[in-house]
Amino acid sequence: MGKRHDQRDPSQLREVNFTLDYTEMALASCLIEVGKTKVICSVSADDRVPPWLRGKGSGWLTAEYSMLPSATRERTPREAVRGKQGGRTVEIQRLIGRSLRSSIDLRRLGEMELVVDCDVLQADGGTRTASITGASVALRAALVRLEKAGRIRSDTLISSIGAVSVGIVDGQAVLDLDYHEDSAAEVDMNVVMNNQGEYVEIQGTAEGATFSKSQLVDLLKLAESGIRTLLSLGDMALTGLA
Amino acid sequence: MGKRHDQRDPSQLREVNFTLDYTEMALASCLIEVGKTKVICSVSADDRVPPWLRGKGSGWLTAEYSMLPSATRERTPREAVRGKQGGRTVEIQRLIGRSLRSSIDLRRLGEMELVVDCDVLQADGGTRTASITGASVALRAALVRLEKAGRIRSDTLISSIGAVSVGIVDGQAVLDLDYHEDSAAEVDMNVVMNNQGEYVEIQGTAEGATFSKSQLVDLLKLAESGIRTLLSLGDMALTGLA
Amino acid sequence: MGKRHDQRDPSQLREVNFTLDYTEMALASCLIEVGKTKVICSVSADDRVPPWLRGKGSGWLTAEYSMLPSATRERTPREAVRGKQGGRTVEIQRLIGRSLRSSIDLRRLGEMELVVDCDVLQADGGTRTASITGASVALRAALVRLEKAGRIRSDTLISSIGAVSVGIVDGQAVLDLDYHEDSAAEVDMNVVMNNQGEYVEIQGTAEGATFSKSQLVDLLKLAESGIRTLLSLGDMALTGLA
Amino acid sequence: MGKRHDQRDPSQLREVNFTLDYTEMALASCLIEVGKTKVICSVSADDRVPPWLRGKGSGWLTAEYSMLPSATRERTPREAVRGKQGGRTVEIQRLIGRSLRSSIDLRRLGEMELVVDCDVLQADGGTRTASITGASVALRAALVRLEKAGRIRSDTLISSIGAVSVGIVDGQAVLDLDYHEDSAAEVDMNVVMNNQGEYVEIQGTAEGATFSKSQLVDLLKLAESGIRTLLSLGDMALTGLA
Amino acid sequence: MGKRHDQRDPSQLREVNFTLDYTEMALASCLIEVGKTKVICSVSADDRVPPWLRGKGSGWLTAEYSMLPSATRERTPREAVRGKQGGRTVEIQRLIGRSLRSSIDLRRLGEMELVVDCDVLQADGGTRTASITGASVALRAALVRLEKAGRIRSDTLISSIGAVSVGIVDGQAVLDLDYHEDSAAEVDMNVVMNNQGEYVEIQGTAEGATFSKSQLVDLLKLAESGIRTLLSLGDMALTGLA
Amino acid sequence: MGKRHDQRDPSQLREVNFTLDYTEMALASCLIEVGKTKVICSVSADDRVPPWLRGKGSGWLTAEYSMLPSATRERTPREAVRGKQGGRTVEIQRLIGRSLRSSIDLRRLGEMELVVDCDVLQADGGTRTASITGASVALRAALVRLEKAGRIRSDTLISSIGAVSVGIVDGQAVLDLDYHEDSAAEVDMNVVMNNQGEYVEIQGTAEGATFSKSQLVDLLKLAESGIRTLLSLGDMALTGLA
Repeated sequence: MGKRHDQRDPSQLREVNFTLDYTEMALASCLIEVGKTKVICSVSADDRVPPWLRGKGSGWLTAEYSMLPSATRERTPREAVRGKQGGRTVEIQRLIGRSLRSSIDLRRLGEMELVVDCDVLQADGGTRTASITGASVALRAALVRLEKAGRIRSDTLISSIGAVSVGIVDGQAVLDLDYHEDSAAEVDMNVVMNNQGEYVEIQGTAEGATFSKSQLVDLLKLAESGIRTLLSLGDMALTGLA
Repeated sequence: MGKRHDQRDPSQLREVNFTLDYTEMALASCLIEVGKTKVICSVSADDRVPPWLRGKGSGWLTAEYSMLPSATRERTPREAVRGKQGGRTVEIQRLIGRSLRSSIDLRRLGEMELVVDCDVLQADGGTRTASITGASVALRAALVRLEKAGRIRSDTLISSIGAVSVGIVDGQAVLDLDYHEDSAAEVDMNVVMNNQGEYVEIQGTAEGATFSKSQLVDLLKLAESGIRTLLSLGDMALTGLA
Repeated sequence: MGKRHDQRDPSQLREVNFTLDYTEMALASCLIEVGKTKVICSVSADDRVPPWLRGKGSGWLTAEYSMLPSATRERTPREAVRGKQGGRTVEIQRLIGRSLRSSIDLRRLGEMELVVDCDVLQADGGTRTASITGASVALRAALVRLEKAGRIRSDTLISSIGAVSVGIVDGQAVLDLDYHEDSAAEVDMNVVMNNQGEYVEIQGTAEGATFSKSQLVDLLKLAESGIRTLLSLGDMALTGLA
Repeated sequence: MGKRHDQRDPSQLREVNFTLDYTEMALASCLIEVGKTKVICSVSADDRVPPWLRGKGSGWLTAEYSMLPSATRERTPREAVRGKQGGRTVEIQRLIGRSLRSSIDLRRLGEMELVVDCDVLQADGGTRTASITGASVALRAALVRLEKAGRIRSDTLISSIGAVSVGIVDGQAVLDLDYHEDSAAEVDMNVVMNNQGEYVEIQGTAEGATFSKSQLVDLLKLAESGIRTLLSLGDMALTGLA
Repeated sequence: MGKRHDQRDPSQLREVNFTLDYTEMALASCLIEVGKTKVICSVSADDRVPPWLRGKGSGWLTAEYSMLPSATRERTPREAVRGKQGGRTVEIQRLIGRSLRSSIDLRRLGEMELVVDCDVLQADGGTRTASITGASVALRAALVRLEKAGRIRSDTLISSIGAVSVGIVDGQAVLDLDYHEDSAAEVDMNVVMNNQGEYVEIQGTAEGATFSKSQLVDLLKLAESGIRTLLSLGDMALTGLA
Repeated sequence: MGKRHDQRDPSQLREVNFTLDYTEMALASCLIEVGKTKVICSVSADDRVPPWLRGKGSGWLTAEYSMLPSATRERTPREAVRGKQGGRTVEIQRLIGRSLRSSIDLRRLGEMELVVDCDVLQADGGTRTASITGASVALRAALVRLEKAGRIRSDTLISSIGAVSVGIVDGQAVLDLDYHEDSAAEVDMNVVMNNQGEYVEIQGTAEGATFSKSQLVDLLKLAESGIRTLLSLGDMALTGLA
């Protein structure tokens, strides 16, 4: 069980920071930093729901994800210039949206659409899980404000959620992979859990490899401990608000 | 442990058929039928690899997925008319490609790109897992033919893979959900395994719900038994070829 | 008057098969096979007509055409991936739509849009004429079902239509060109007729050549005899239904 | 055989004018006016051929067609704003290109691509046939200039071509339909012929109707006489040049 | 203060011509020729305003700009084929729209959208300023006709506007640059003024250079004298109409 | 000469801050804050120049501009989702690119393309001028680093540039408009100058109004004083680097 390339233990998260309302135009926003990874997560509310939901009395939450071109060591071409979102972007924003929807009661929300924007300022691995974790904090702040404004019921929030990546690197299960580790990982798994310790999403991928049942068990344990820590830090970030 | 709406046991697959070379223009093709779900999986070979792989001596495999507009009870708008592939399509074809790449040795393939097309003629649930399972059979037939033609080495294939969906419906873990069950499922999980019993992909989603660790264990067991059966049937379909 | 490369007489069709409801999600579908050419033709009904027809009491019929990437010997890039339908596709689906609209009374149809999907599973020449011929059969089945369901009047169908290609190959007028002949043809003509022996469409093209009046006469005669046979076979395919 | 709404005989063309080099930036251009229909047809030469022709020693000709938004009584939305060319546009420019290619010897042209632009300034019916007729004149001027500049062989031109629409209006076969007649026509046919009296293209359409063999014969006769006149007028327009 | 390459004085415009209603389908159109530059400017009226203005009792004016591919010495690719308008096009049409909106009272216009199309038939420098100048003439004709038809108030027009380019070429300030001068200019400035001598837009650009305050003063003087002349010529073109 | 809504004098800038390398993946980056407006300006270097410059020994600089959806009080739809950049975006990034190109010697740069990304995190007016000012600082840092790495000559930088908006609000000329003032301004002018006091760009617009010569003189004076201050602050931000 050796140290990792940045001296972390296998079960150690990178340094994590939440800055509530780093930008102040949206209903609520949260800048999450996980090591060098920086993501601004913002929540807006729209009184119109998507066409297929109109008149049904239920709300919706949708998420969008993007990286600044300068977020990566080698500049990433801008999707607005290419004229469409790439496959990776689409996959990530669908994951973020699904995960967050599991944490609120859409019927209690009423006919309102919440739009969550996750914009990556700097990418050093784990941007999708940082997005989910940061967005859950921003979402909770947004719901408090909507409730204070009398726009939603007080019991719309079901749970808080957190997400982390785990993987097998050099044969060892590790928590919270940075870009360097992610590039070398045999197995890469993103886990989303709520504060009741239940799974919301598990996405395990073995690009060019496979993984066994015992490895799966190890990875899920690591993920659970990491998410518990992230959820505590998120709670603290919201202290001032409550 | 009651019967399901179509009289299947919880651990029972739908009827499965493989028809090799239903269409004959591609290098190899396989029509897979799982209940009413019908998918044509075809494999083509291209001597040019994507730009970022050129001159590196390694090959690539890419997958595309589509549904005929008439494949669903309510007609699905054609993506070529809308001008882009939807998020669900992109997510599925990325999954198919990643899974199949784990079953071959890309360096042994040499500078060649295999293109796998999964076109759904009729959709009744489980189209992405049927695509993976059928495409693995077509891929194996294609590799045999490429080897006979002297275009690839004999050890390019690493494993055969199969995929199945499992889920929690009315609180019960069930195997191979059809469209009716899929719409009502609390949890939906797609599992891809190889013939060594190792995981290639696990994608578990709880849209509007969550799932516990013991439920996860039950679902993975069901999936494993289903995939073993699918792999046997796939082997039989290839008997004439070998 | 020598034999053709596949031993057919100049005035001989390839083997033709109609399979009604090969897929069963649409209102009606027909798999037509003309030699190796295979097309699934499906008909769906939508209670909304296009915006420019709303409130006018008249219906509409629109057609879409596509080829599976694996339908051709050399894989054809997927239009949904390229982001738009090609010129050939657009031209063909406009022809199919126009032809079928001539066979029904749009005012009697009432405010309903029929959508015809022609998806080519395998292409060996004559896909546009096979699409029209197969779609006319599926359309007639669909109209019978709509009438039984009380959704349309019984006199909506005006005629049945059929289509075939004719051309000049090696100086000889031939019926129903396959891909091999089509590539070598000096003149290529698609003819659509109804069961009263009247023309619906004539599209004669001499890519890199021209044709004389007497050649035109010969080609039109061949086409008429071919279409009569196709219309008889189509009638038989619908026997079970009536 | 009564007069038409604009007092023309059934077999009478509208007034036709050719203005060579109305614009002077292209290699050659021709403004053709047929009644109120006005089209600028221009020819440019590019030393690069399309990728699929490179190194084969043969040339190519491609055509593009467009209407100014202000060309029609009701403004037509601009295709560049909508982000794609419509189906009608694609169909027309493919027809123009095919027709013109039949009038030159692509192998003698050598590795050069001729681009023909047909831009409709005002549309009053018959824009596609006016485009072909005007473009053939511009093409002939361009070939003379290319030959003088020593860039092509003197025998590249095979024939001159002309095109006209004919149709059945109120049961009567008429030549050169204007917009008013075109909207009311039961049958609409575009015919392209060369100066040897041979057919290059025949496109007969019966939107919502059909036509008999004897009607076909009448229409083809009308078309031939009209095209002969157009070809003579085109020759005169080129007199100054030769 | 030497002569320019085409023998003009530094403060001399090229020859200017206005042809009212060169095309006659739109509400009003004006062909403006400035030297070899030719632009058709047309005005259409639509009773619907853009969504964000509906129900507010105010009107709107929007402009679109395009060049025929054959307008330039080297053929310009067609934007409808490329699938989008280029940056230069977008910038120009926004400038035209803004400028023209300053010349009318949008509230007096009422709920109506005026669409101005500027289509460049031939480009020899100054197409954006010719478009503004020609469009102002067409707009005034259109307003007269709308007023006669009782569709707008008589005081909707605020002013007439004109535009011209000025620049520094070989160190000398010159008026109305043609393409040859434009390519060589150190500084290029487009000025839009109204008939009260007030500025509507100033856009000065020094691609690869800079300009001083005294140069700015010289350029603005030249522009003002040029625009006065253009406004007089525009008034004359409208004489017949008033 | 009264106070403004935020208590500033007419000739007073908002508080300005430059943070060099707020993100650290690009060659250089600068976060500029002007009041609540926040823009990350990053510079990347690419050894390939655009196709039209290849082999000419000269370099290029291109700029891209975007706003986070959450940057504005009312959420702005994401351009990558809409599938294209809007007209305003295109206009702004062309202005940024042109302005910055005037500050470097492209021939001395050699065959290298500099890409400048200006991403607006929060928008409260003046985002295009903040982008230019911040990007000039990032560009200077990038050039110092490229020179140290031996990739460019030491004399590539010609000047530093700064930009500011000025306008007429309630009849009074004011410097550095925030969003509130910008919405109410009769005239809006963006001025770009270099550290020799010469103009690089002047873009004056009177949406729904006009402006006189004396107003122009006042605005240009205000702009000059504001830019001098911005250039001093930019120099200080770079002190640590030199």
